[in-house]
Amino acid sequence: MSSITIAVDAMSGDRGPKVAVAAALDAVRENEALSIILVGNQAELEALLQEGHPRITISEAVDVIRMNERPSHALRHKQNSSMAVALRLVRDGEAQGCVSAGNTGALMAFGRSIIRMYPGIERPAITKLIPSLRGKCHVLDLGANVDASAENLYQFALMGSLMASAVSGLTEPRVALLNVGEEEIKGNEQVRLASHMLAQSDTVNYIGYVEGSDLFRDVADVVVCDGFVGNIALKTGEGVAGLLIELLEQAFSRGVYGRLVGWLARPMLGRLLRLMDPARHNGASFLGLQGVVIKSHGNANERAMLAAIRQAAREVTMEVPRRINDRLDELMI
Amino acid sequence: MSSITIAVDAMSGDRGPKVAVAAALDAVRENEALSIILVGNQAELEALLQEGHPRITISEAVDVIRMNERPSHALRHKQNSSMAVALRLVRDGEAQGCVSAGNTGALMAFGRSIIRMYPGIERPAITKLIPSLRGKCHVLDLGANVDASAENLYQFALMGSLMASAVSGLTEPRVALLNVGEEEIKGNEQVRLASHMLAQSDTVNYIGYVEGSDLFRDVADVVVCDGFVGNIALKTGEGVAGLLIELLEQAFSRGVYGRLVGWLARPMLGRLLRLMDPARHNGASFLGLQGVVIKSHGNANERAMLAAIRQAAREVTMEVPRRINDRLDELMI
Repeated sequence: MSSITIAVDAMSGDRGPKVAVAAALDAVRENEALSIILVGNQAELEALLQEGHPRITISEAVDVIRMNERPSHALRHKQNSSMAVALRLVRDGEAQGCVSAGNTGALMAFGRSIIRMYPGIERPAITKLIPSLRGKCHVLDLGANVDASAENLYQFALMGSLMASAVSGLTEPRVALLNVGEEEIKGNEQVRLASHMLAQSDTVNYIGYVEGSDLFRDVADVVVCDGFVGNIALKTGEGVAGLLIELLEQAFSRGVYGRLVGWLARPMLGRLLRLMDPARHNGASFLGLQGVVIKSHGNANERAMLAAIRQAAREVTMEVPRRINDRLDELMI
Repeated sequence: MSSITIAVDAMSGDRGPKVAVAAALDAVRENEALSIILVGNQAELEALLQEGHPRITISEAVDVIRMNERPSHALRHKQNSSMAVALRLVRDGEAQGCVSAGNTGALMAFGRSIIRMYPGIERPAITKLIPSLRGKCHVLDLGANVDASAENLYQFALMGSLMASAVSGLTEPRVALLNVGEEEIKGNEQVRLASHMLAQSDTVNYIGYVEGSDLFRDVADVVVCDGFVGNIALKTGEGVAGLLIELLEQAFSRGVYGRLVGWLARPMLGRLLRLMDPARHNGASFLGLQGVVIKSHGNANERAMLAAIRQAAREVTMEVPRRINDRLDELMI
């Protein structure tokens, strides 16, 4: 197994560098092929690292991008931020991928300005594997863009299909558009036009429209929507899961009988709780850039940050950007 | 208690008139103030009603609107459909409200053409009370419109606020816009402009942006979005709930031990299962029309259809349209 280096923006998350440093230590300990470059305030990171680790190094960055900072402002004034420095490490080949828990808009703006896009792709999209009853589903865009033209949706479908092939080994991933109904007449103009374009495509195995409830029913391998819709669908789903977990915990903590049955039920609920655990699913891919860029939840804890680093390592190992780029190159000829 | 009459479009649902007739019989039996007019094929309805009920009558309609029929086509060719006839019963005062499990687009088109809109409101919206851990939240639009201008969103917020006052008795309902983040800079143009308009409003208690996960956290009483986003959020939430219920059932049906613990746990899971039961939550309100129009899920079963009829009766009893209309009239002066 060849060695991998991931740059971790240690400063931009809500919980500060402590979480990033702890997750980096966990990650290098569990994966002997992995090295990590922590990007941020040198003194602070050194103090947190204590005796350190031979496969963890520090790359200094003096600035931090705030969560509510305008991406355009960050782009002008924060070229020395931990986020920008981490992305440049990927561009310069010192790392093969990077992870940031910072401002999504700024990560997209810096990502596009620092790392080259795939040929023929206008905008990156954020994508994630959503667990379902059987199998998993790549959903994009989850919030890189607040709107999308039919051409953008078409390109997301193409990238999503290539991603599903590269990550899940599917030869003809089933690609669908998220819509308010399955009938042909439904939906807004962009979605209807994108559907028309996809139906003509030789490259994408387009299966038509799916609805929000289909995301968890293994009817498609890739589901495409604009970033506004995708972000709200994802967070609504997480909200329902959170509500249910809370109700389940309440039910099994009321009285002696409740706690006893809860204890008896614990082993059976393992799969359900794992499937619903947000920390396990942390880490969304910035798809469209010729490099692995993983966005972590802003308020990720150590376990969640570790999941995001693992995902970056996995995409690097599977050479996701190279494989997508090669296929897009062929298609553009 | 004064008597109420609800017109039920018995023909337009996926499961045919059998479900509507059975639900109508249940509804009049449990509510002595309620009369129902079943609208549809007389012979078929009479056969299903058997000996009948003194508070159930039949109003003949020869046509049925298909689920995938274009609303514009239905409007031209299906004036004698069960849906249109049911709406005219409301317009003519023979019923105070109606319920249909048919084509949403057609219901909106006929609703607008048959029943007057509130003063100053351009488009109706579909709204529903979403259960959360504490309290409930009115969400709109859930799919009446596939897009919405800032003015539309503003009007939805106004109607939603008046609805929450009328239905839940809140004096200053907390009204929020659904967005991809809580920061002021987030979101698409329509949402940002609507936020600006709402912030200036004396009538609406606007609290700013909320995210998808906030729908279940009792942070707002009314959440406003366009119909594309709302429909997908609602169905995604239902999808997650369905997935979880299925996993829970799987966990408690595996082996003797699993089934035993499941049986022991059943009483504790009651609240959770009730909260997640789609049939109990069936029935969405068409808000914007001067009359009670309730949209049922297309594939509603008897229990779900009964829930929709109950909701129509509740809104009629609470005089929701008159109360909203009076307030809007005042505001327009």
